[in-house]
Amino acid sequence: MSRDIVISIDAMGGDTGPSAVVGGMVKSARKNNEIRYIVHGDEAVLRPLIEKRRELIDITEIRHADDVIPMTEKPSHAMRHGKNSSMWATLQTVEKGDAAAAVSCGNTGALMAISMLRLRKAPGVDRPAIAVLWPNKGGDAPHNIVLDVGADIKAEAKDLVQYAIMGAVYARQGLELARPKVGLLNVGTEDHKGRAALQEAARALEELAKDPEAKIEFVGFVEGSDMASEDVDVIVTDGFTGNVALKTAEGTAQQIRGFLREAMEHTIFSRIGALFALTSLRRLQKRLDPRRVNGGVFLGLNGAVVKSHGSADATGVSAAIKLAFRLAKSGFTESVTKRVAEHATKAQSESES
Amino acid sequence: MSRDIVISIDAMGGDTGPSAVVGGMVKSARKNNEIRYIVHGDEAVLRPLIEKRRELIDITEIRHADDVIPMTEKPSHAMRHGKNSSMWATLQTVEKGDAAAAVSCGNTGALMAISMLRLRKAPGVDRPAIAVLWPNKGGDAPHNIVLDVGADIKAEAKDLVQYAIMGAVYARQGLELARPKVGLLNVGTEDHKGRAALQEAARALEELAKDPEAKIEFVGFVEGSDMASEDVDVIVTDGFTGNVALKTAEGTAQQIRGFLREAMEHTIFSRIGALFALTSLRRLQKRLDPRRVNGGVFLGLNGAVVKSHGSADATGVSAAIKLAFRLAKSGFTESVTKRVAEHATKAQSESES
Repeated sequence: MSRDIVISIDAMGGDTGPSAVVGGMVKSARKNNEIRYIVHGDEAVLRPLIEKRRELIDITEIRHADDVIPMTEKPSHAMRHGKNSSMWATLQTVEKGDAAAAVSCGNTGALMAISMLRLRKAPGVDRPAIAVLWPNKGGDAPHNIVLDVGADIKAEAKDLVQYAIMGAVYARQGLELARPKVGLLNVGTEDHKGRAALQEAARALEELAKDPEAKIEFVGFVEGSDMASEDVDVIVTDGFTGNVALKTAEGTAQQIRGFLREAMEHTIFSRIGALFALTSLRRLQKRLDPRRVNGGVFLGLNGAVVKSHGSADATGVSAAIKLAFRLAKSGFTESVTKRVAEHATKAQSESES
Repeated sequence: MSRDIVISIDAMGGDTGPSAVVGGMVKSARKNNEIRYIVHGDEAVLRPLIEKRRELIDITEIRHADDVIPMTEKPSHAMRHGKNSSMWATLQTVEKGDAAAAVSCGNTGALMAISMLRLRKAPGVDRPAIAVLWPNKGGDAPHNIVLDVGADIKAEAKDLVQYAIMGAVYARQGLELARPKVGLLNVGTEDHKGRAALQEAARALEELAKDPEAKIEFVGFVEGSDMASEDVDVIVTDGFTGNVALKTAEGTAQQIRGFLREAMEHTIFSRIGALFALTSLRRLQKRLDPRRVNGGVFLGLNGAVVKSHGSADATGVSAAIKLAFRLAKSGFTESVTKRVAEHATKAQSESES
């Protein structure tokens, strides 16, 4: 099989540095014989890292970039002054068509801003969104999709409806769910709860779900406790709430891992117990490992962009690359664009009739 | 010691029913020889439950109420039609001064609405808040305080500042922290992140913290991953975000408990391991048990109201009663009212000068 899916990678800007990114590229290259890379960053740093990995030498093109966008830089500053950065070059490579998808561990706000500038919003989309995979308790797919988790800090009713449409495409093509169950995140499941935008979005989604062509089942409001529920596949919220929920869950999982470690070291008996249960505890650790479900996807742009966690190590970067590859290969971006445009046309004709 | 702290309890309206409430009253009465109860609900149900518990007979007064406010009832409806409910009577008993604090497992929105109606907002408070205790990773106190977790679905800058002031009083009197560290929940810790109200509240809290009399340390913005951090004691947010974060954390903890159970049952070795580690695993279970940190507190009213989790069992109800007792005994409500009024006066005189 020829290596014909090209992924554009920003090797700079994450918390863990280029060696973690190169490590992730190696992991993915070992498991995937269709992938090629164009990697962006400081050539003096990248070339030695890449040349000593035989898995990468023949399938990686290095493109030098002078600058790195720091994690703390304001998006507006990055847009004005980021032209020579590795992040900019990574996205421009997708814009030009040299690569099918982009991956970066860098500053989320800057990545979103430069993505919008270079790839532009898909027709009809006002607010693109970041979607993440959330491990669930045993639904039809191993993950739920949650969006927006931080592309924008607010969302109006029509944005929430678009998030639902885009998230449902992701669920159909990425998780192979024929008719994904969509829920709106709220402070209660009763009809009267929550903000006006949520009420309005709920009415619109009820209407939308009646159309069999939409291939969406609307399950109404869901709560924070339903993030991992098997009764919902796509959870829609504004980017502020989604970001807080995601980070709260990550923090809680990390806290419990710490408690578990302490508990198992507490007495000689529990240490013996831990020895016996080692394989099972490792399996649990793996299930709780946020790096394995790493990779947020930007939805609603004219191009596929995967945001890897800023503190991702090689395992995390590899998961993000795998996701970018899958999206590129399935023509995912085109499907999202098409669905949103279709709905916009339909909503328009309904409001005129 | 005489039993002179009276707690008014709504025995109806929770998901688990009056027997769980009575069970919680028994647990608390066994450990506390200063407490008395006035309990509200259907006397035909309550009397037999209470008369068979010798711990309760002499210290409990039953007051019959005809109605129960269902969990799904709208707050506005409960306010108009709830006069004969157990919840209403529970709060009226505090209003009249017959009891020092109220406890209910019922409908949060209705409890908030009727509390406001009967106890009224403290002078200067626009938006009362619900505060919960959040187990932390090992700070100066075993819990952080998070507010608002659902009294209101939005908060302006001045509300967030009041939440900080009220939460800090709770931390000083409830957790014995002399100068609590207060943080504002946001989507990033950088200064420029988040909504305008958060920016404005951050500036006001920076100013407030300069006053040594305020006894507050302002640590700036915190993220969802910091909810259990030892670097913050009081986490301030709007009620929508706080509610989602709380329920997301509860859901995540429950999910991990399920994974842990599965992992420990997976092989014969892990079962043997679990036997050896039984005590340690039970300790872990206890630490993760949301019922043990049960009890949200309504801040900013002329009276102490503790909202117990709707699905609380006897252990959960007992935790809520213990909290109500501690608040009543420490004159907590008066302190909150005083601090808020002081700050309002000060902010007023500053804006005039």
